[in-house]
Amino acid sequence: MARSDGRNDDQLRDISITRGFQVWPAGSVLVEFGRTRILCAASVTEGVPRWRKGSGLGWVTAEYAMLPSATNTRGDRESVKGRIGGRTHEISRLIGRSLRACIDLAALGENTIVIDCDVIQADGGTRTAAITGGYVALADAVTWLGAAGRLADPQPLSCAVAAISVGVVDGRVRLDLPYEEDVRAEVDMNVVCTDAGTIIEVQGTGEGATFTRSTLDAMLDLALAGCAEINEKQAAVLAEPYPGELPKPKSVRS
Amino acid sequence: MARSDGRNDDQLRDISITRGFQVWPAGSVLVEFGRTRILCAASVTEGVPRWRKGSGLGWVTAEYAMLPSATNTRGDRESVKGRIGGRTHEISRLIGRSLRACIDLAALGENTIVIDCDVIQADGGTRTAAITGGYVALADAVTWLGAAGRLADPQPLSCAVAAISVGVVDGRVRLDLPYEEDVRAEVDMNVVCTDAGTIIEVQGTGEGATFTRSTLDAMLDLALAGCAEINEKQAAVLAEPYPGELPKPKSVRS
Amino acid sequence: MARSDGRNDDQLRDISITRGFQVWPAGSVLVEFGRTRILCAASVTEGVPRWRKGSGLGWVTAEYAMLPSATNTRGDRESVKGRIGGRTHEISRLIGRSLRACIDLAALGENTIVIDCDVIQADGGTRTAAITGGYVALADAVTWLGAAGRLADPQPLSCAVAAISVGVVDGRVRLDLPYEEDVRAEVDMNVVCTDAGTIIEVQGTGEGATFTRSTLDAMLDLALAGCAEINEKQAAVLAEPYPGELPKPKSVRS
Amino acid sequence: MARSDGRNDDQLRDISITRGFQVWPAGSVLVEFGRTRILCAASVTEGVPRWRKGSGLGWVTAEYAMLPSATNTRGDRESVKGRIGGRTHEISRLIGRSLRACIDLAALGENTIVIDCDVIQADGGTRTAAITGGYVALADAVTWLGAAGRLADPQPLSCAVAAISVGVVDGRVRLDLPYEEDVRAEVDMNVVCTDAGTIIEVQGTGEGATFTRSTLDAMLDLALAGCAEINEKQAAVLAEPYPGELPKPKSVRS
Amino acid sequence: MARSDGRNDDQLRDISITRGFQVWPAGSVLVEFGRTRILCAASVTEGVPRWRKGSGLGWVTAEYAMLPSATNTRGDRESVKGRIGGRTHEISRLIGRSLRACIDLAALGENTIVIDCDVIQADGGTRTAAITGGYVALADAVTWLGAAGRLADPQPLSCAVAAISVGVVDGRVRLDLPYEEDVRAEVDMNVVCTDAGTIIEVQGTGEGATFTRSTLDAMLDLALAGCAEINEKQAAVLAEPYPGELPKPKSVRS
Amino acid sequence: MARSDGRNDDQLRDISITRGFQVWPAGSVLVEFGRTRILCAASVTEGVPRWRKGSGLGWVTAEYAMLPSATNTRGDRESVKGRIGGRTHEISRLIGRSLRACIDLAALGENTIVIDCDVIQADGGTRTAAITGGYVALADAVTWLGAAGRLADPQPLSCAVAAISVGVVDGRVRLDLPYEEDVRAEVDMNVVCTDAGTIIEVQGTGEGATFTRSTLDAMLDLALAGCAEINEKQAAVLAEPYPGELPKPKSVRS
Repeated sequence: MARSDGRNDDQLRDISITRGFQVWPAGSVLVEFGRTRILCAASVTEGVPRWRKGSGLGWVTAEYAMLPSATNTRGDRESVKGRIGGRTHEISRLIGRSLRACIDLAALGENTIVIDCDVIQADGGTRTAAITGGYVALADAVTWLGAAGRLADPQPLSCAVAAISVGVVDGRVRLDLPYEEDVRAEVDMNVVCTDAGTIIEVQGTGEGATFTRSTLDAMLDLALAGCAEINEKQAAVLAEPYPGELPKPKSVRS
Repeated sequence: MARSDGRNDDQLRDISITRGFQVWPAGSVLVEFGRTRILCAASVTEGVPRWRKGSGLGWVTAEYAMLPSATNTRGDRESVKGRIGGRTHEISRLIGRSLRACIDLAALGENTIVIDCDVIQADGGTRTAAITGGYVALADAVTWLGAAGRLADPQPLSCAVAAISVGVVDGRVRLDLPYEEDVRAEVDMNVVCTDAGTIIEVQGTGEGATFTRSTLDAMLDLALAGCAEINEKQAAVLAEPYPGELPKPKSVRS
Repeated sequence: MARSDGRNDDQLRDISITRGFQVWPAGSVLVEFGRTRILCAASVTEGVPRWRKGSGLGWVTAEYAMLPSATNTRGDRESVKGRIGGRTHEISRLIGRSLRACIDLAALGENTIVIDCDVIQADGGTRTAAITGGYVALADAVTWLGAAGRLADPQPLSCAVAAISVGVVDGRVRLDLPYEEDVRAEVDMNVVCTDAGTIIEVQGTGEGATFTRSTLDAMLDLALAGCAEINEKQAAVLAEPYPGELPKPKSVRS
Repeated sequence: MARSDGRNDDQLRDISITRGFQVWPAGSVLVEFGRTRILCAASVTEGVPRWRKGSGLGWVTAEYAMLPSATNTRGDRESVKGRIGGRTHEISRLIGRSLRACIDLAALGENTIVIDCDVIQADGGTRTAAITGGYVALADAVTWLGAAGRLADPQPLSCAVAAISVGVVDGRVRLDLPYEEDVRAEVDMNVVCTDAGTIIEVQGTGEGATFTRSTLDAMLDLALAGCAEINEKQAAVLAEPYPGELPKPKSVRS
Repeated sequence: MARSDGRNDDQLRDISITRGFQVWPAGSVLVEFGRTRILCAASVTEGVPRWRKGSGLGWVTAEYAMLPSATNTRGDRESVKGRIGGRTHEISRLIGRSLRACIDLAALGENTIVIDCDVIQADGGTRTAAITGGYVALADAVTWLGAAGRLADPQPLSCAVAAISVGVVDGRVRLDLPYEEDVRAEVDMNVVCTDAGTIIEVQGTGEGATFTRSTLDAMLDLALAGCAEINEKQAAVLAEPYPGELPKPKSVRS
Repeated sequence: MARSDGRNDDQLRDISITRGFQVWPAGSVLVEFGRTRILCAASVTEGVPRWRKGSGLGWVTAEYAMLPSATNTRGDRESVKGRIGGRTHEISRLIGRSLRACIDLAALGENTIVIDCDVIQADGGTRTAAITGGYVALADAVTWLGAAGRLADPQPLSCAVAAISVGVVDGRVRLDLPYEEDVRAEVDMNVVCTDAGTIIEVQGTGEGATFTRSTLDAMLDLALAGCAEINEKQAAVLAEPYPGELPKPKSVRS
């Protein structure tokens, strides 16, 4: 049984990572996994939240949200509903936790970086794409802080972070599920990895089904290989010079 | 005293209107006035709000919001704050009111169109740009409804709607203020017009200053001329065929 | 076509301004435009909001609200709904902005004046009546601050502020619309002026209709004349001594 | 030790009850106990809340609130805070419960009467004044319903309701405490009675002190006598014809 | 007419008071009145709320809540509804006020004690049981503070606090109503007393009925006798050594 | 390096499961893992949420919450804060999803079962203990529905659900972490399993550290063995007759 977009079971969708998408934030990345499109912006603020003050440690956090027009059927705004839903909370926490795994907060110094991941268009795998793009935006923000002489230590990033979804669809273990596969997946798993091949987070769920240990192993194999491939793309994109002039955001702020 | 971007006092910024920016909504427009960039999406739902049911009339409404990363300094999310601020409310109401002025709601039939205006990047004039782009998205949504045979009457749009800001800066009456001029303007006015040269809305405010009737007249002159120019751009863009296949969104939905 | 209350098109309703309506606030005015009745109270607090501290500048802000029993059909309380509606926000912001146009905040010193405009009975034109009455309450609060020796500078008020509604009803341009005319007006405009004849704010809206530049001009003519008349009434009322003893509120507070 | 306003311990303040204070509600009463001034409006709606539908029973409820300018020091609006405080809830519930004690809800038919008690000026005893004025507004609303032929039964009111505060101040049992006595009272009690001399509600609290059974008895004696006096005033006021034309509100609504 | 559980009209249900129910709080009491079961925990925090700082006075407050599963029909969580209901507010305030009547806040020193009363199972009389159990938890917390050398003065408790419900059911005055009697009571009263026989709070309400002064007297007789009996049980329980090791919570905290 | 409570790395804490803890809910279980104590109540309602009506399917959902006094340091109530935190949302969703994996919602018929998991005392592993106890409460509620003849099909439960935490502490892979180990764990994982040995959910997180595939494998080994042991305890407890009379809750409800 073939995938509706013709991919092999272990094949990623086309991935595109565009840096410098906005002028104001220190890092701003448009990340695309097929039709899934997310704007990941890394905003830098001097100082840290109250509960952290005087610790010498910086802080990295993330906020995930969907534009109402991002989905097949228009979604209501959480600002209009007056409360953030459980799913949004859960994903924001996952992104923040994942990105903090690769950064030395003492080296960051008492700076706060907020990674805003706003889904422009959703077609499955938004949380893993947000982590993938969020890492690149974070890397650019760290570079910007370094250029501004505001880091406590020259290189706070200890590894690169990538993430991918994997699942069981039509009885087959498949990588990088689009929405159409995601809604009918029996098992759904998200894996966050580093470029050292280690794991930051694993979240696997049977959807109206349970799964065996060997299925879990097969999903992990696919996910780890997919993450390695994404790490390569991130490295290639970050090897390029910053599009648009890096000093511009700095002068805007001051 | 010249403008910082070299424009004449009566000159608009570069305006760009990109249709079909997203795949799911019936109309999706990225509108740009210089560095101001707004995504205007027109989502169609069958039926109308409860208080309208059985009236035979359709409904058009708008919601305006800013991405946290859209501004010079990161803004807090209204969903996180748990309430929508006064400015957001005010602008959403203005956009909805302005766009309803050009549509015959009986001809629309019992359909609802929500125009989501999400500011990707802010550099002054976001509310007028949102109205300008929102009209184009609305026009595409109406065309889409017509193609789907869901209109009560073939042509519900009676006019085109454009809007522009004008103000007094450095003692001079100027058109289309960027953020840098907006913050130090003595008078700030937004004008919403139709392509028939009539006015839908005028909102003029002295910012720590008051203004004379003759200054008001000079501002109106500039704004009406600016709107006429924008109406031409809208017409030119809408004369093009829909980028990407028009029937696609329809089949996605069903 | 005559007006239902027999007035000429350019005629104001009976206006009454009662000072000293409450004992606690430094200024307290009951303003009446026909059956529209609003209680405008100016409360003084020492100090300014956090974001203003140490600036040497004072602050003036306004809050508008309707009693549930003020309208034809009982309205739900915004405190019960748990959120303030868009219309309330919009009007509160308009009143505050309008009153700040006439006051030198440096001369006010680091004091805060809140103008509470609570609608006791609504019959059209509540926002313009609130501005008109709010100015008188503000003037009394400033006098009270002066008498208490708490002003940085003897006369912070640079002009008087009045406001009036104007609109197109039954095809005729009319001044000071009661509710019955307001609901069927084709165009609705609010104008805020100073006693120097200059304009602070203009807000004109086509309600399911658009309007020409010449209609706009005719509406402005009527509104400016109406405001001049209201300014005279304000001046006459403020020329009277404070009803009730001015020193009383001071001693209550200390 | 004399009372600061010269009254005897068992003496009420001057009480004034003004009917027909607003034009829209079916009953509208301005009640004054000394400087305490409350607007009690009784609004009638056809039908009952969902959980009552089809029961044949009507519903009476109350909402209490304070204008920000009603107190010595300006209070924040509960609509701005986004939640109703415990004290407000408690008093609203007390007023509703007290007024329901005197009405036969079957005779009322499936109509809802909301009693809005908005404190214009507070000087102690607002909750008991609200009950006292609320009863008169309720009686007018019931008369209005009767005149409109909308009652299931001609006379739903079975008794009249009055309320008064009593307390121990300076070691003496005193009736009808103003704010100045209320804040330093050792014991504070509110009593709600009928014109048949029976009790609807008793709420007595030691404020940083406890009290004996005999003090409780002395307070009850004073309160019951005070209520009887208030009941007489209510009866006298209600014996007058409705000020302003009774039929007007009816025609306004239809 | 006999009571459904066979008790005499003046008889309490079986009362059980279990101390040391939880390991973390300084006082933790499970109180049972028949099937009514409430967990009363007294948590100690160093310091006082902002508005009390530097006063040298401590603070005691209470929060009452029901588990969703505590009642016959499952109740919605107030955290899910996003607001605390009027009844909850009212009871929390009553408990806090009652317990503050017996404690010298200067002797407590700048410490805060929060009494959390969480209803595990409800069968009538939860507010009076919460006060009864809350007192015992408070006493244990005060002992704990004394052992930790954190009291400003050795014995801040000046009396013991107990509470009981009483009412008129089937035309008879009865003590300690279970839910089954409570819902059909004509009059419902809660009385809070000290072990000195004085009264802290009386709250009596006619439920769709009014009551005479002599009925009130009969209810007070029963309630005062009931409270005296409960005070004895409290004293007996507090005379026992603390179950589980008293020093444990202290070491856990530090 | 030994564990502070003397257990082996692969050893569970003492587990106790008490059924029939409350009288009102159809299932009510107090589950204890060492000092962690959670009340899991399964409440049955006829009918399903609106979006499910007419589907013939039942619904199972869960709500998790902590008593303020359950933790070392008192936690603020989410009802007081007015919003549910991200962690609470996340855990509630996990419990609901886990329990739905073992039930045939068609067999359940149009009934709703809400599993309330209220943490009485927290000492690590609350979410996994809640799933473990929640399953037993769910099983009792299903039995109760069967006895009441309200199931569409006699046996809707297809498997038993248990959960356990596992982590890396002091460089060692350990089972069932108490709070003291949890806070300093390098890796933290929760595993939900069925009594068929299959997996429902896996959530593993590096806390300021990443982990290798082989560590993941070792954690899974321990967790699966732990779950099997817990499944046995559940089966043993459910083999006992219901403590207290099963028919009682039924008659209470009707």
